[in-house]
Amino acid sequence: MSKIVMKFGGSSVATTEKIQHIATRINHEKVNGNDVVVVVSAMGKTTDNLLGLAMELSENPTKREMDTLLSTGEQITMALLAIQLNEIGFDTVSLTGWQANLQTDNVHRNARIENLDATRILDLLAENKIVVVAGFQGVSGEGDITTLGRGGSDTTAVAIAAAIEADICDIYTDVDGIYTSDPRFVQNARKLEQLEYDEMLELANLGAGVLHPRAVEFAKNYKIPLRVRSSYNEDVGTILKEEVDVENNLVVRGVAFEADIVRLTIEYEVPFNGSLASIFTTLAANHINVDIIVQSIVDGKKPTVSFSIKKESLAEAITVLESNKEALGFIFADFEVGLAKVSIVGSGMVSNPGVAAQMFDRLRKENIPVKMVSTSEIKVSVVVPQNDMIPAANALHDEFDLALV
Amino acid sequence: MSKIVMKFGGSSVATTEKIQHIATRINHEKVNGNDVVVVVSAMGKTTDNLLGLAMELSENPTKREMDTLLSTGEQITMALLAIQLNEIGFDTVSLTGWQANLQTDNVHRNARIENLDATRILDLLAENKIVVVAGFQGVSGEGDITTLGRGGSDTTAVAIAAAIEADICDIYTDVDGIYTSDPRFVQNARKLEQLEYDEMLELANLGAGVLHPRAVEFAKNYKIPLRVRSSYNEDVGTILKEEVDVENNLVVRGVAFEADIVRLTIEYEVPFNGSLASIFTTLAANHINVDIIVQSIVDGKKPTVSFSIKKESLAEAITVLESNKEALGFIFADFEVGLAKVSIVGSGMVSNPGVAAQMFDRLRKENIPVKMVSTSEIKVSVVVPQNDMIPAANALHDEFDLALV
Repeated sequence: MSKIVMKFGGSSVATTEKIQHIATRINHEKVNGNDVVVVVSAMGKTTDNLLGLAMELSENPTKREMDTLLSTGEQITMALLAIQLNEIGFDTVSLTGWQANLQTDNVHRNARIENLDATRILDLLAENKIVVVAGFQGVSGEGDITTLGRGGSDTTAVAIAAAIEADICDIYTDVDGIYTSDPRFVQNARKLEQLEYDEMLELANLGAGVLHPRAVEFAKNYKIPLRVRSSYNEDVGTILKEEVDVENNLVVRGVAFEADIVRLTIEYEVPFNGSLASIFTTLAANHINVDIIVQSIVDGKKPTVSFSIKKESLAEAITVLESNKEALGFIFADFEVGLAKVSIVGSGMVSNPGVAAQMFDRLRKENIPVKMVSTSEIKVSVVVPQNDMIPAANALHDEFDLALV
Repeated sequence: MSKIVMKFGGSSVATTEKIQHIATRINHEKVNGNDVVVVVSAMGKTTDNLLGLAMELSENPTKREMDTLLSTGEQITMALLAIQLNEIGFDTVSLTGWQANLQTDNVHRNARIENLDATRILDLLAENKIVVVAGFQGVSGEGDITTLGRGGSDTTAVAIAAAIEADICDIYTDVDGIYTSDPRFVQNARKLEQLEYDEMLELANLGAGVLHPRAVEFAKNYKIPLRVRSSYNEDVGTILKEEVDVENNLVVRGVAFEADIVRLTIEYEVPFNGSLASIFTTLAANHINVDIIVQSIVDGKKPTVSFSIKKESLAEAITVLESNKEALGFIFADFEVGLAKVSIVGSGMVSNPGVAAQMFDRLRKENIPVKMVSTSEIKVSVVVPQNDMIPAANALHDEFDLALV
């Protein structure tokens, strides 16, 4: 007998039919003798509908009240799922964030979990009940309803798994696991049986949207085995853990890519006067996310700094730069569109210093020009022309033997 | 400066436009220097939509979970109203039932308020904030969400008014007050300025659906002045209190009527063996509400008992009686349809014993036959043919001078 946490996202509970479907999955785990806690998101479009109502009243609605409003979405799902589980014969109790004692700070709309006293959940499990908990929400020290921000329900699931010392936390999604690369574009992309938390963190930050980085970080901190599985089949999915088994110990474990990248280049008058930080402070203040930054100071040339942003931020970024040109002290700004980012991720890179060189070599052989480079301990990202993105991903997937079982 | 509670029902908050409208009403009370607590119901069809979802899953959904589900309706309204009040410049905080410390018993779907610790509400008022509280809901000793059953939001408003020692509790509705009779059918029906709690209780029990009896009882117990007003105009409405002012001291204050009444008559074999109680116990167990009961034991005749029920319960009542005929010990049952009930209500009746006689005399003059009679200290009800209902109501309204100002 195990203690398991099962988390279902918005599309898995979008209709009462889908709620009936996941009830059979939960049923299956329960009749196998497991203690089961289920965490649910809001049904399909509920959150958007509630946001729409608030926006009819205010462009900048009070954050505390938005949390109170939006938290009803998960509360509706949890009650309906509990009704269904009771209907098919399983004694089930639903709990909101405050009922589950999920304590957070008071940063509304982006609260962080501070404590989770699992006494009530454990008592209910001891009574052989299934417990359904609303994801995404908690309660502040002042007794106000808070929400956890993006990826919040995943984080709730992991936090509960940690608090009840669950054997595993299963995240049910539309996909059946984490792949070496996106199988729609990369031939031979293959589902990974295991992946390390840190690798998943890099993949999540690179836009592999299956799991929110915050939930992965939480799982990593509390060493909770996290499994990504499909709501629609019985596949085992991918298990995230601290260290993957030796037989899977590939140097590179995934190839991620992202289209619609723009490179901005700014040229300064010499002497360079330290306004580099000001540029990025100004962009951040305007909610423009900067990814890769490359600075170039070559004798005899004017210093330049290049950085990548997403295409949708371009117009805003140019406006911000132009209107702060004088304060920021640069003389010339240029941009290049039609770029993409391709990254390789793997914890084995730490002990294999030749990986980046092998990557560049392969891209050179494929005649793919590299415009920018960024590295971390377990990741190398390159910016390439968008037309070369898929060929680059396929080439790197092949280069690092990811199709092998 | 007064402390006031303002309660708005589902149709007053059905859309964001209506929420904007009532915000201006609240604004008006606040800028006049009052401390304001607002109690709201769920928006228009929200409750029906949530019920519909639950019914797709279960014919008999778990009551605890239904309360958790339905309570989201008021939570959505309160958050939206708070967003709107903040938007127009009033510092506003919304509170759910549990946040407002509204403690109930654990009878889900029909909970009773046990205690309301108003500390948090009073603290917020002391900070010059408007407080918006979700009606209809509370929290049990076990920390479960409960709902108060029909008329629950009115009861919440009165309970809060009692707990914060409000000067008045205003119930905003679709109508602009309590009338001497239904103005759609009775010419000269007139809005009452004042009415006693007990009179309102009789009128409410007679189907004048403006206020739920439980809310009126609560107001009576705590002597909270209760005012029924329109959300759509500035009319003063009708004030309910313990004793109305002398100048308004009419003997009869209202004429109520209700169509679609059926009279059932049951004949027993002699000797009558005490199964009268069993009949009504059996009917109650099958959720058939019996109103007027008349028993007739005349020497030389078989004993009979007649009682009135609503038309929609007739088929069920006949089935129940037939299938229990032997156990209940009666030999014959008959029914008469096409009847209606007309009632006069007024606390002055207690000290005016001739009122019933005056009523019967007038009905006789109008050639309206009386089929059944029921009296209480401050009410006389008669059952008459349905065709005579409106003429009877008009005649009695005239007989007791209710059109006078």
